[in-house]
Amino acid sequence: MYETALGASTPDTITLLGQDLARDVMGTVGFGELAFWLATQRRPSPGETRLFEAVLAALADHGFTPTAIVSRLTFLSAPDSVQGALAAGLLGGGSRFLGVTEDAGRFLNSVVSAHAPREDWDALALETVRAQGKTRIPGLGHHVHKNGDPRTPRLFEIADEEGLAGPHLSLFAAIGRVHPQVLGKTLPLNGAGTCGAVLADLGLPLELLRGFALLARTAGLIGQLAEELRNPVANQIFLSVDMNTRSVAPVEE
Amino acid sequence: MYETALGASTPDTITLLGQDLARDVMGTVGFGELAFWLATQRRPSPGETRLFEAVLAALADHGFTPTAIVSRLTFLSAPDSVQGALAAGLLGGGSRFLGVTEDAGRFLNSVVSAHAPREDWDALALETVRAQGKTRIPGLGHHVHKNGDPRTPRLFEIADEEGLAGPHLSLFAAIGRVHPQVLGKTLPLNGAGTCGAVLADLGLPLELLRGFALLARTAGLIGQLAEELRNPVANQIFLSVDMNTRSVAPVEE
Amino acid sequence: MYETALGASTPDTITLLGQDLARDVMGTVGFGELAFWLATQRRPSPGETRLFEAVLAALADHGFTPTAIVSRLTFLSAPDSVQGALAAGLLGGGSRFLGVTEDAGRFLNSVVSAHAPREDWDALALETVRAQGKTRIPGLGHHVHKNGDPRTPRLFEIADEEGLAGPHLSLFAAIGRVHPQVLGKTLPLNGAGTCGAVLADLGLPLELLRGFALLARTAGLIGQLAEELRNPVANQIFLSVDMNTRSVAPVEE
Amino acid sequence: MYETALGASTPDTITLLGQDLARDVMGTVGFGELAFWLATQRRPSPGETRLFEAVLAALADHGFTPTAIVSRLTFLSAPDSVQGALAAGLLGGGSRFLGVTEDAGRFLNSVVSAHAPREDWDALALETVRAQGKTRIPGLGHHVHKNGDPRTPRLFEIADEEGLAGPHLSLFAAIGRVHPQVLGKTLPLNGAGTCGAVLADLGLPLELLRGFALLARTAGLIGQLAEELRNPVANQIFLSVDMNTRSVAPVEE
Repeated sequence: MYETALGASTPDTITLLGQDLARDVMGTVGFGELAFWLATQRRPSPGETRLFEAVLAALADHGFTPTAIVSRLTFLSAPDSVQGALAAGLLGGGSRFLGVTEDAGRFLNSVVSAHAPREDWDALALETVRAQGKTRIPGLGHHVHKNGDPRTPRLFEIADEEGLAGPHLSLFAAIGRVHPQVLGKTLPLNGAGTCGAVLADLGLPLELLRGFALLARTAGLIGQLAEELRNPVANQIFLSVDMNTRSVAPVEE
Repeated sequence: MYETALGASTPDTITLLGQDLARDVMGTVGFGELAFWLATQRRPSPGETRLFEAVLAALADHGFTPTAIVSRLTFLSAPDSVQGALAAGLLGGGSRFLGVTEDAGRFLNSVVSAHAPREDWDALALETVRAQGKTRIPGLGHHVHKNGDPRTPRLFEIADEEGLAGPHLSLFAAIGRVHPQVLGKTLPLNGAGTCGAVLADLGLPLELLRGFALLARTAGLIGQLAEELRNPVANQIFLSVDMNTRSVAPVEE
Repeated sequence: MYETALGASTPDTITLLGQDLARDVMGTVGFGELAFWLATQRRPSPGETRLFEAVLAALADHGFTPTAIVSRLTFLSAPDSVQGALAAGLLGGGSRFLGVTEDAGRFLNSVVSAHAPREDWDALALETVRAQGKTRIPGLGHHVHKNGDPRTPRLFEIADEEGLAGPHLSLFAAIGRVHPQVLGKTLPLNGAGTCGAVLADLGLPLELLRGFALLARTAGLIGQLAEELRNPVANQIFLSVDMNTRSVAPVEE
Repeated sequence: MYETALGASTPDTITLLGQDLARDVMGTVGFGELAFWLATQRRPSPGETRLFEAVLAALADHGFTPTAIVSRLTFLSAPDSVQGALAAGLLGGGSRFLGVTEDAGRFLNSVVSAHAPREDWDALALETVRAQGKTRIPGLGHHVHKNGDPRTPRLFEIADEEGLAGPHLSLFAAIGRVHPQVLGKTLPLNGAGTCGAVLADLGLPLELLRGFALLARTAGLIGQLAEELRNPVANQIFLSVDMNTRSVAPVEE
C-alpha cells in the first residue's frame, strides 16, 4: 500500500491533510499557510504564516534574471505549453542562482545541530567562520547590495515581532557581526541566505529549502509570462543575441 | 530597452510592482495576494484574494496523480535536483490532467465575450450546449465525483459571499442547469472547471489560467516530496512496475 | 503485466528490441539506425538510415536559437544539473520553433491519407493549397532563406538516391511548384518542413515527428553546452539584458 | 559579440562546424559521428565513431526504468507536449540512475590526471581502491548483473579492436582485477561505469559525460513513447498506484 496524508477522495468527499477540503480549507486557509502545511503536515500559526509568506515575497521575482529570461524565451518558442515555460524557468533554480537559500539553511543547520543549545552565538560564529577558511560562507555577500540587502533587516524584524527567531537566525546574525574580524572586510548578510535561516528556524525540511524558493519563483514566473503577453520582449532579446553573433572556426580539442 | 514593472533593484533598494519590497510587501502581502498582483499588476481586494486562494487550495493536491508519481520518481532518480523533480511534475500539467481549468475558462470566455451582457443565462447556456454538438463541454463531468464535486458549490458560495460571481460563473451555473435537456443525462460541474470560471471572473489572463493550476500544484508537489522524504514510496512504485514487466517480441510497423 | 519489446535484462543477459545488446547491437548498429529501430521496432535499411540521419543533421543546431540560449542560461544558473539544462532547452521545442517538422508531416499525411494513391500530384497540390485559404501551409516559407533553403534540395536528392521518395515528399514538391498560382508569390519549401515529409515517408509515427527534431536538437544542445564550457557567453547575454532593463510602473488590467 | 563554431546561416548558405551543412554533412555524416563532432568540434575517426555509438547503444534503454515510467506518465497527462514528456524523462538523469557514467569517468580521470603516464596500472589501482576506504568506487557493482555486466567485456573488446583503449579503461580494468584484495569480495565492473571510462578515453568533456547518457536515453524515450502509442500502459501504471493508496493521518513534524 502507498500511504499518503495529502489529498484523497471518495465519490462524495475530498480531503486534504485530513481536513474536509471544501468545508475546512477552501475559503479559510491562505495559500502560503497551505503550502507550509503541505510541506510539514502541521498547520502553521498566524505568525509562522506571516514570516513564511515574507520569505516567499522576498524570493518571488528579481526582474530579468536568467530564470525569467529562460521562461520568456521558452514561452516564445512554445506558446502552447505554459507548463513547459514555467518548468524551464524553474530548472535554473540550481546551485548558483536560487541555491543560496538552501545552502545557507543547510550550512547553519550543520553548525547548530552539532552543538548544544547556547547563548554565546558570537563565539560559535567566530569558530564557524574560522573553520571555513577560504571557503565561502553561504549567505554572506551580495554583488549589488554591497552596503546591505534591504530584505535582511526586515526578515529579522518580522521574526522578532512574531517571536520566531531561532538558533539559525541567531547564528546567522552573529556571523554578520564577527566575520570582519576573520575576513578583514565587512560583507552584508544577503536576503536569500537570511531566507534560508528563517526557513530552517520554521522547521521546514532542509532537503527542500530550495523548493520554497522555487514555489516563490513560480508566482514570479507567472508574472513574467503575464507581462510578456502584455509587453513582449523575448523576441527582442533573441534578436539582440542573434544580431551580435559571429561565426568562428571550430576549436579542436 | 526591456521594460518591466516586476522586480527591480538598485544598490540600496529593491522594488516589486512599484512597491518597496522590504517595507511594503514583506510581512504585509500574503503569498496568494502577491501571486495575483504579479499576474495582473493590480493589487486584489481581500475578497478577491480569498476567492483566488480558494481556487489554489482546490487544485493543490489530489494524492497519487500522475504528476505526483512523476515528481516522486524523478526525485528518486535525481535526489540532488529538487528543481528537476518539481519541473518534471509540472510537465504533466497539460491538456488532460490540469488543463480543464484553462479549457473551461477559455470556453466560457469565448461565449461570454461574443455576446452582449445579459441576464437570461439559461437561454445562452442552452444555445451554447446545443452548439457544441458531440464535443465535450470543458468542466462538465467527473470520473469519480459523479453526483457532484464538493469543491463546486463551495466556490460558488465563496464567490457569492465576496460579491464576485461574474458572467463566467453565471454561464457555467446555467450550463449545469440546462445541459440535461440537451444531453439527456445529468453531469456534475467539476471543481477544476469551476476554478476556470472563477479565475476568468477574477480577470486573470486567460492564456495563463493553466499557470495558476501549476502554481497550486507546485505547493502540492513540495508536499509530495516532503512526504517522500519521510515515508518513501517511489522505489516501491518502480519495483511494482519492474516486477510486472514482460518482455515481448518487437511489433514491426 | 506491462509489456515491452525494448530493453530487458536477466542476471546474465541484456536484450534490446529482441537482440542480444552486447553481441548484436553494440559495435554493429549506428546510433541513428538504433533510434529509428527503437521508434518503429523495425530495423531500417542502410538507405533509410542514411536519409534519417540526414534529417537529424539538418535539425541538430542553428546557432543561437532560443533553445540554445535557454540551455546556456540554465547551465549558467544550475551548472550541477546538465539534465536540467538539456531539458530546459528541449522545452522550447514546441509549436513555433521546432514544430514545423511535425506540422508539415501531419499536414501532408492528412491529405495523402484522404486520397487514393495517385500520380497527378500537381492537381492534388493545387486543390490542397486552395482549400487552405488564408491558413499558412506548414513548411512553406522561410524568414532567412527567402530564395531557397539549401537543405531542401539535398533531402530530395538523398531520398531519390535511396529510392525512398514517397507520397509525402511528392505532394510537398508539388505544393512547391503550384502554390504561386494560388498565392500570387513564390515561397521556398523550408528544410524543417521537408524533414517532416521525409520522416512521414519513412513511416515514423506522426505523433512523434517533433520527437526526432528534439533528438537531433539534444545533440546540438550538448554541442552548445560544450562550447559554453570552452568559451562562455551566457553571463554576457544575461548582463546585456540586465543592463538594458528599465523599470516602469505597473499597468493595471 | 557572441562567438560560435556551431550552426550559422546566411540567406543562401547554412554551415555547421565550419562545413557546408547540405553538401558536406547531410547524407555523409552519421548521427553519432555528428554528436561527437558537435561536442568536441573535432571530427571523430570511424573507429572513434564506432566506439562512441557502442556506448550510446549500451545506455539507450533499460525497459521500465523510472525515467521511462516518468516519460510515459507525462505523455498520458499532457499528450500535446512531446517535448514535455521527453524533458520530464531526462530530468531523472541525475546522480542515482544515469549519473554512474559521469561519476566513473570523472573519478578515473581524477586519478589518471594526478599521476604521470605509467604501465603498472594494477599498482595504481590498488592505491586508488585503498584510498577510497569505505566510499563506493563509481562503476563497481551491479544490483542485477552480479556475475558480470555483458556490456563491459564488449566495450573493452571494441576499444581494443579500434586501438582506442586509453588510460581510463586501463585503470578501470585494473580496478576490476585488484579490488577483491582490498574489499574482500568481487564486484563486477558495470556497463554504465565502463561507458564513462570509454567516453573519457575518447576525450569527451568530463563535465558533460552525463549528457551523452542523456542523448542515448532521448532515443530510448522516443522508443518508449512510440510503444506507449501502440500499446499503452501508463494509465494502467497510474491506476495500479491509485488502487493501492491508503489515506493516513498527517504526521506532524
